[in-house]
Amino acid sequence: MKYKVKDLSLAEIGRKQIEWAEMHMPTLLEIRKRFEAEKPLKGINIAAVLHVTKETAALVRTLKIGGAEVALAASNPLSTQDDVAASLVNDGISVFAWKGETEEEYYSNIESIVKLNNPQIVMDDGGDLHAYIHEKASELKIFGGTEETTTGVIRLKAMEEQGVLRYPVIAVNNAYTKYLFDNRYGTGQSAIDGILRATNILVAGKIAVVAGYGWVGRGIANRLRGLGARVIVTEVNPIRALEAVMDGFEVMPISEASKIGDIFITATGNINVIRKEHILNMKDGAILANAGHFNVEIDVKGLKEISIGKRNIRPYVDEYILPNGKRIYLLADGRLVNLAAAEGHPSEVMDMSFANQALAVEYIVKNKDKLSKKVYNMPEELDYLVAQIKLKTMGILIDELTEEQREYMKQWKYGT
Amino acid sequence: MKYKVKDLSLAEIGRKQIEWAEMHMPTLLEIRKRFEAEKPLKGINIAAVLHVTKETAALVRTLKIGGAEVALAASNPLSTQDDVAASLVNDGISVFAWKGETEEEYYSNIESIVKLNNPQIVMDDGGDLHAYIHEKASELKIFGGTEETTTGVIRLKAMEEQGVLRYPVIAVNNAYTKYLFDNRYGTGQSAIDGILRATNILVAGKIAVVAGYGWVGRGIANRLRGLGARVIVTEVNPIRALEAVMDGFEVMPISEASKIGDIFITATGNINVIRKEHILNMKDGAILANAGHFNVEIDVKGLKEISIGKRNIRPYVDEYILPNGKRIYLLADGRLVNLAAAEGHPSEVMDMSFANQALAVEYIVKNKDKLSKKVYNMPEELDYLVAQIKLKTMGILIDELTEEQREYMKQWKYGT
Amino acid sequence: MKYKVKDLSLAEIGRKQIEWAEMHMPTLLEIRKRFEAEKPLKGINIAAVLHVTKETAALVRTLKIGGAEVALAASNPLSTQDDVAASLVNDGISVFAWKGETEEEYYSNIESIVKLNNPQIVMDDGGDLHAYIHEKASELKIFGGTEETTTGVIRLKAMEEQGVLRYPVIAVNNAYTKYLFDNRYGTGQSAIDGILRATNILVAGKIAVVAGYGWVGRGIANRLRGLGARVIVTEVNPIRALEAVMDGFEVMPISEASKIGDIFITATGNINVIRKEHILNMKDGAILANAGHFNVEIDVKGLKEISIGKRNIRPYVDEYILPNGKRIYLLADGRLVNLAAAEGHPSEVMDMSFANQALAVEYIVKNKDKLSKKVYNMPEELDYLVAQIKLKTMGILIDELTEEQREYMKQWKYGT
Amino acid sequence: MKYKVKDLSLAEIGRKQIEWAEMHMPTLLEIRKRFEAEKPLKGINIAAVLHVTKETAALVRTLKIGGAEVALAASNPLSTQDDVAASLVNDGISVFAWKGETEEEYYSNIESIVKLNNPQIVMDDGGDLHAYIHEKASELKIFGGTEETTTGVIRLKAMEEQGVLRYPVIAVNNAYTKYLFDNRYGTGQSAIDGILRATNILVAGKIAVVAGYGWVGRGIANRLRGLGARVIVTEVNPIRALEAVMDGFEVMPISEASKIGDIFITATGNINVIRKEHILNMKDGAILANAGHFNVEIDVKGLKEISIGKRNIRPYVDEYILPNGKRIYLLADGRLVNLAAAEGHPSEVMDMSFANQALAVEYIVKNKDKLSKKVYNMPEELDYLVAQIKLKTMGILIDELTEEQREYMKQWKYGT
Repeated sequence: MKYKVKDLSLAEIGRKQIEWAEMHMPTLLEIRKRFEAEKPLKGINIAAVLHVTKETAALVRTLKIGGAEVALAASNPLSTQDDVAASLVNDGISVFAWKGETEEEYYSNIESIVKLNNPQIVMDDGGDLHAYIHEKASELKIFGGTEETTTGVIRLKAMEEQGVLRYPVIAVNNAYTKYLFDNRYGTGQSAIDGILRATNILVAGKIAVVAGYGWVGRGIANRLRGLGARVIVTEVNPIRALEAVMDGFEVMPISEASKIGDIFITATGNINVIRKEHILNMKDGAILANAGHFNVEIDVKGLKEISIGKRNIRPYVDEYILPNGKRIYLLADGRLVNLAAAEGHPSEVMDMSFANQALAVEYIVKNKDKLSKKVYNMPEELDYLVAQIKLKTMGILIDELTEEQREYMKQWKYGT
Repeated sequence: MKYKVKDLSLAEIGRKQIEWAEMHMPTLLEIRKRFEAEKPLKGINIAAVLHVTKETAALVRTLKIGGAEVALAASNPLSTQDDVAASLVNDGISVFAWKGETEEEYYSNIESIVKLNNPQIVMDDGGDLHAYIHEKASELKIFGGTEETTTGVIRLKAMEEQGVLRYPVIAVNNAYTKYLFDNRYGTGQSAIDGILRATNILVAGKIAVVAGYGWVGRGIANRLRGLGARVIVTEVNPIRALEAVMDGFEVMPISEASKIGDIFITATGNINVIRKEHILNMKDGAILANAGHFNVEIDVKGLKEISIGKRNIRPYVDEYILPNGKRIYLLADGRLVNLAAAEGHPSEVMDMSFANQALAVEYIVKNKDKLSKKVYNMPEELDYLVAQIKLKTMGILIDELTEEQREYMKQWKYGT
Repeated sequence: MKYKVKDLSLAEIGRKQIEWAEMHMPTLLEIRKRFEAEKPLKGINIAAVLHVTKETAALVRTLKIGGAEVALAASNPLSTQDDVAASLVNDGISVFAWKGETEEEYYSNIESIVKLNNPQIVMDDGGDLHAYIHEKASELKIFGGTEETTTGVIRLKAMEEQGVLRYPVIAVNNAYTKYLFDNRYGTGQSAIDGILRATNILVAGKIAVVAGYGWVGRGIANRLRGLGARVIVTEVNPIRALEAVMDGFEVMPISEASKIGDIFITATGNINVIRKEHILNMKDGAILANAGHFNVEIDVKGLKEISIGKRNIRPYVDEYILPNGKRIYLLADGRLVNLAAAEGHPSEVMDMSFANQALAVEYIVKNKDKLSKKVYNMPEELDYLVAQIKLKTMGILIDELTEEQREYMKQWKYGT
Repeated sequence: MKYKVKDLSLAEIGRKQIEWAEMHMPTLLEIRKRFEAEKPLKGINIAAVLHVTKETAALVRTLKIGGAEVALAASNPLSTQDDVAASLVNDGISVFAWKGETEEEYYSNIESIVKLNNPQIVMDDGGDLHAYIHEKASELKIFGGTEETTTGVIRLKAMEEQGVLRYPVIAVNNAYTKYLFDNRYGTGQSAIDGILRATNILVAGKIAVVAGYGWVGRGIANRLRGLGARVIVTEVNPIRALEAVMDGFEVMPISEASKIGDIFITATGNINVIRKEHILNMKDGAILANAGHFNVEIDVKGLKEISIGKRNIRPYVDEYILPNGKRIYLLADGRLVNLAAAEGHPSEVMDMSFANQALAVEYIVKNKDKLSKKVYNMPEELDYLVAQIKLKTMGILIDELTEEQREYMKQWKYGT
């Protein structure tokens, strides 16, 4: 086995991290148990480009136990946990990843795992691995792939439309048990966690402005209310805006909200949601954080242009002085505050996401002869299965339909 | 003009009811204002079979002001408000409806309005008018129709599939601003209102079991929690069950919940959700109510079979004595508790539903040459428009996308 | 036995009402069970002036079962339920009460029960019975009395201060299990119930203004939020105002709130909280309701003065037309909306209140030789006992202190 | 000026910390503004023994600006922020404090500031300064003192009772704007913050057991519910238990709750609330945290006794292996999780606490001739004033009583 990690001596620390994660990923462990007995991935080589974190470790260890040979590279030059990478090497995973890769090293590591592994299955988070395979490894016979992110799925669908997609891909991202739980519960909590770690402010009594009332925005808005904030929502979609109103939130344009908010959190999926003209409206001490899309939702460039001074106050907290004398605090430079200032999604959320990944890989292996060169949604029955296993691990039983009820429900086939 | 109502002298009382409704239906009134100026329905005859309530009055008055001739019959033999019917006659609507019609009278009234009116547009709530037109008035040249209910839409889609549908139908029921607001906010509140009017129990401290975690169930569960109940959810769908868990509710099978609940509310869309074996589990004093589908969710027949005694305690509250001595209280004989024991949906909810109806009629008139003999969803832009008008009438402004943002969003065309 | 009620033939209907109440008053029934075995009130004559409702019936039946002879008159000329009164006669209670007594009849009935009964114990709700005894029945040897209301307690404390109180009185009103549960949970729910019954409005999306953030105001504000309203609180006490802010509510003066509210609910204990100048600010369609103190919190007289028209729209809903053309809707003429438009406190709340009453009567009998002519708070151990029994009837167990913990807690004797 | 701190070169970092705190302590800054103009503490020497944190810095800087000479020592050998201490020296405060003092150094520093400063006012947090003055500096003429903690107040009240208290003390701890906001909002949030920082678990879907339903417990229980947990409350006080039930929480004994909880948080003020027998009930992976009293609420000694293995997993997370194979995770060794694993109270909470301190000091100076050698509660009008200033700094206006209302309220003098 070959590998390239920062420092193998970190393995023991990494092992404890992985154990902590696995303790909170019971769905994946349940699948692992079955994989151990059935070895459904026997003889399969997998190349995976994922964030090299303790949760990913739980996934690739599961694949390995299921019979696969796994080679792993990082899906982001900065996100690798070096101790986890070291521990995975001890588990027999071919890891090529370290924190702080150069761009060249990043692509080179992807190349390394593909060349080393000659994969039949490729697992990706963002689309760089899929791109590499299509551009530089066309000789490989790929059974299929998975994709974890919206961005990656978009790239792949464009390829499908252009007729250049070379193998079937399961859009794990579109599993209900992935995106809904990720966004509403995962980001809903971790964004607030990130803000508290960065600022230690008291939420109770604050006026919090949440831009966007999609799943992430709803999660955040409800949790802020639960912590005692008065929450204002801004939206561009009138139906979502009306839902926010009916849920008891104030709704107003950001041009108005910017005058009264104490803290602003963007979660829209769009760019420049908070712009210079809004920032100039703000109260002294206003705090800006992004829980949405990359680092584009807050116009950080604009903020810098209009500021006459800047200094770092605390980790992840930069103070900008405006010409009007007001002080504005930008968290984590406008990047995703839950990733930057906290620890990203809790393991429990990745548990469902990665249970989908493991089942998707198994599904591809089993159905490799039936699948076309298309982007598939996660099969609905597997999506259900993830929820079923999760409930089981929590000790929660639910009802089953009686025969009579199953019959009765057929009438709804056209209905809502 | 011809009409057939109970008592014209009730018109003044009905007028006040209609005014109270219209005060809380600003979206429809806003559309009425435009209709009054533009007369988009000029020369159009409309036959409508709807519940003859104060809110329906607000709708048909709007259609009339928009230029249409309207004939109205009841969509249910028992739901007509006779005072409202009388007042509508004064408004120049041809009403054929009274509370307590026989089955024969019910169908005869539908026939009457069609024969009187020779409609180009038909509006229905359940599908009986559409059926009549197809079976007995095939000579009519119908531009199109609307349908308010899930049941009606199902009937029409079956007709479309069989190739027998004679005109385009807009499934108003499928408008997001209709079904979501109806279910989550309308039934969510009014079901609890019905239970309180029937029983006057204190919700705080009670164990409430909500069967079903769809939109209605969510609405009810959250409102019960807001009133201080400990809420247990039962579900058959593992993903919905998991959402309930993540929202902080207890989830268990009805076979377990039946042992500890103080009050049970069904909202599943299925039959026999609460059955004999569950009822026999229940605590002395348990209360059963249905907020879901017709009167089939609670097995009332089964309850009667296993009971050794029954008496009425209060309006809408029947006491059943079980062989084990326990007393079970069934509300409104298992029918929809919000309709039976309270006043059904608040006017504000019907406001959005009927704004969709008015816009759907106008849409059919404008597009009659482009539409095929199909069941159409409510056009998305009209759905949006309803939300926009509603927000406007509430004095709520929202943001608009900038040109740059509009451009940016195009990348999501494949995405979630 | 003598009695004077409206119609004895109503007894059977009243009996069912009483049974429904007793089903939801398990604490009192638990005490009744002990009273039945121990007969602690044997030989005691009790004169009670209370609202003659189904819940009061449950109380006086308990006293009777405990061995007492009970004579009952109404504490309000309008609040008697004639069917309940009739049923109580069948139970052997000397009832002198009917709905719609004249003022003369009201006082004459109080006189009748005292003369008939020669009580050793007097139970009052408002202070009229205590006043009668002091003024006109000074020959009676009274062991002690109870008082249910704040107003009554105030009158009695004034008498104590002036040295004219003739017997000990237990201020049942001051029991924590009475006033806190009454106000927060009882009025919190029933005020909203009253508003919904009167108006059938949708709460979700409304701007609700709650005047006063005491126990009643908190109960109402939280429940309105649970139903989807945006809630604004007005307060005069800065600490309470700050609590409301920290609980996530908007706080502003009524002069501002009056401009944006859809519905206003007073719960301050003060007079003229909503005045002419505020009403003139209001939006067309604003709804005014009082859940606080008598009918003095909304300046109804002022509203009438500034209105140019008035009519009744629905039961408990009066429309006032202002000179500016706006329409304002006053519920229940500004009286307590939960009593007028709904059914007052749920039985579960009266359960605790009247469990305190029953225990207070027993306490007086047992301690008649030790008590002085003073107004006593409900003994703390009985207050606890009520909570303990209530929990027991709900099947809820709680922890007990260990010996070590009991010892440890002694250090807090000076502390918070 | 004399001082003894770790490293003066840390002053610049400390300065930024203090600025961040002061940004969130507007009440204190508002008082500072007045102090700057009025110099009410001119000529006063103050010795203060407080946690040397950024918030305390904001307080002592205010006292200095008010005219006082301030000497400051630490109230805990471990809690000093050395950078803050350094910055305060630059502000002219005589600081004798560093992180990691020995016990000897701790007492020596108290001695140093008293000898240096010859205070007329002493401010304490726990009672050690008051004890020193009484025992070793009886020659000093002290106008009065303040005390921040419950423990300190208890010590002082015992001294008052024994007749040995030498000067008046204001129990700042008993101010409503201190203890209520501290406990409900401060600890309510920061305890959860500490748990999330330590564990990064997802709260949604967890079963959380909160021991104690006092202000801290309520704050935590409500916030956990807001984050999606199913919350179980344990209590020994039946009235509090009943409130928890009425607020919709499950209530059960810890002996039962211990079998089903995922995470346990103690907030009772008592010892050994979670004991060996409970821990042996727990599920694999259960997490234990304390938000209550010192480190005595969880029986850590007992946990160690029954464990067959222990290791540290993450900062503040220790894993204990039970003989039954279950793994239990104790946070922060059972100490206050908000102090140990997060940053303690947010500045906004200390703002009110220290505004009370500043006003208490001024009050003593102004009333030194009227006060006796007693422990006084914070004067109610100052408590109100703190709330008023806080509201003002938040831009929140509230109503004032009219003359008529003020008159009306007088009737309640006896009432609730």
